[in-house]
Amino acid sequence: MSQNRTVGVLGLGSMGMGVALTLVERQFDVRGFDVRQEAVDALVDAGGTSGPSPKRTVQGCPVVIVLVVNAKQVEAVLFGENGAVEGLAPGSVILQSSTIPADFARSCAARLAAHGIEMLDAPVSGGAAGAREGRLSVMGSGPAAAFDAAGPVLEAISGTVHRLGDQHGVGSTVKTVNQLLAGVHIAAAAEAMAFGVRAGVDPKVLYEVISGSAGSSWMWQNRVPHILENDYTPLSAVDIFVKDLGIVLGTGQALSFPLPVTAAAHQQFLAASAAGFGREDDSAVFKVFQKLSGIVIGSKDEDESD
Amino acid sequence: MSQNRTVGVLGLGSMGMGVALTLVERQFDVRGFDVRQEAVDALVDAGGTSGPSPKRTVQGCPVVIVLVVNAKQVEAVLFGENGAVEGLAPGSVILQSSTIPADFARSCAARLAAHGIEMLDAPVSGGAAGAREGRLSVMGSGPAAAFDAAGPVLEAISGTVHRLGDQHGVGSTVKTVNQLLAGVHIAAAAEAMAFGVRAGVDPKVLYEVISGSAGSSWMWQNRVPHILENDYTPLSAVDIFVKDLGIVLGTGQALSFPLPVTAAAHQQFLAASAAGFGREDDSAVFKVFQKLSGIVIGSKDEDESD
Repeated sequence: MSQNRTVGVLGLGSMGMGVALTLVERQFDVRGFDVRQEAVDALVDAGGTSGPSPKRTVQGCPVVIVLVVNAKQVEAVLFGENGAVEGLAPGSVILQSSTIPADFARSCAARLAAHGIEMLDAPVSGGAAGAREGRLSVMGSGPAAAFDAAGPVLEAISGTVHRLGDQHGVGSTVKTVNQLLAGVHIAAAAEAMAFGVRAGVDPKVLYEVISGSAGSSWMWQNRVPHILENDYTPLSAVDIFVKDLGIVLGTGQALSFPLPVTAAAHQQFLAASAAGFGREDDSAVFKVFQKLSGIVIGSKDEDESD
Repeated sequence: MSQNRTVGVLGLGSMGMGVALTLVERQFDVRGFDVRQEAVDALVDAGGTSGPSPKRTVQGCPVVIVLVVNAKQVEAVLFGENGAVEGLAPGSVILQSSTIPADFARSCAARLAAHGIEMLDAPVSGGAAGAREGRLSVMGSGPAAAFDAAGPVLEAISGTVHRLGDQHGVGSTVKTVNQLLAGVHIAAAAEAMAFGVRAGVDPKVLYEVISGSAGSSWMWQNRVPHILENDYTPLSAVDIFVKDLGIVLGTGQALSFPLPVTAAAHQQFLAASAAGFGREDDSAVFKVFQKLSGIVIGSKDEDESD
């Protein structure tokens, strides 16, 4: 039984670290890996362990969760030199929770199966805060046996597990659709706030009125406060949406499916990245309009004290 | 005092009729006008009265609410031949609640003031259901005295009255920003649903998962059920958003302000209108994707029985 409380975590960014610390708190034996030594040190300080490679870190783990930035990193940590597949025993389970194209999720599952390793296509929603508090929403698809094996880990890290059937790729597709909406809604929130301010409306009043009206969205309510406070400390960065809407548009192209509103939103995140805001909070897509037109948020006194 | 229970309603579409019937139920003496005789008949059947013109209908009303489709109709019912201004006494108040450009709201207020008539720039949100149930959200700006005079009417028709100061134009600007977001969110919901179905996800599952995730919006939750049920009975029509996003983009152009995501969404509503769906529910912007790619919502059995 004690072996079932051992879990590997590959990737210790804001999402992976949040999950790792949650699992430590919930009495799991957490073995984490990241290329950034300071992240590894933080996990070890909190009570986890690590190793010199993904392979050595996850050796003997029955369950490993992967929370890295993109498909290239998934490729490296699983299948690269000293990758996780070299350290895992047949019958172990990979929870692949990074945001990746559905096609890549399917090919990963097939390649892992050749090593006798099961995969859940299990991306998550809920942000860094959800990860740290063990209340992520999991969009999972894959074999029932893998859901069972990963059950204690899923229960520890999530508030909701959506079981989307046994076919790999469904989880990542649903996540892709979620990112389409999330990205468009952030870009629309920035466009609406900038337009309203330019047209002379007090931004705080605009936020309050729209929050109770038909124009509201989860992202409006979550991200506009960052704009109002001029605080672009990254919870999730502009470049994450440059990547994620890129996945959406790439999937659309592969399916010969046009996504005109998404394409416009993607261009706005690219504009923000081009202007040097790529590593700021994704709400900094608003700063494209500030840079263009000099609109100001906050009182003049506040601006002068900056 | 009884005179304060007399109210004119200009425009008896789904919004104006809902407001008129609510006011009848709440013991107002309601005098309504519309160019469509069947709408006038319905109001009279419910206990209201009417007249042969806006002028004759609102004669003696201390408060008149205007809920027509666009600026051209506002111009006609207020300032046209036998328009309301010819019938109203100085000191009466116009609640201008149609969705119109802020510049036009300001010019209307100035022209009414020349007749001694006060105006509230008071567009509403909440749809036909909100109008019929007396729980609209009012985004109002104008003189405090006009808010006071219109108080009983505002209280009867709305759940919330946002008082946005004494400057005409603020109410319409906030409404314009709300419509920007509402329109973009409907277009994004349609795009996301179509994309998800094309990529192989069950549409009902997609709706449920996203409704509890960061990709959700007020419009997602309200409009996607129409798509799932293949029911495009118009609550608010595609052509309303062709108009409203046109107002948003026109205001942006007047301010030399780019609105790229809004522009993409507007093109999708225009595509739906071009395809013949202009008078269907605004969620029929989804049908653009159906027409393009033949994606199907609902089981095959349901489709065969259509």
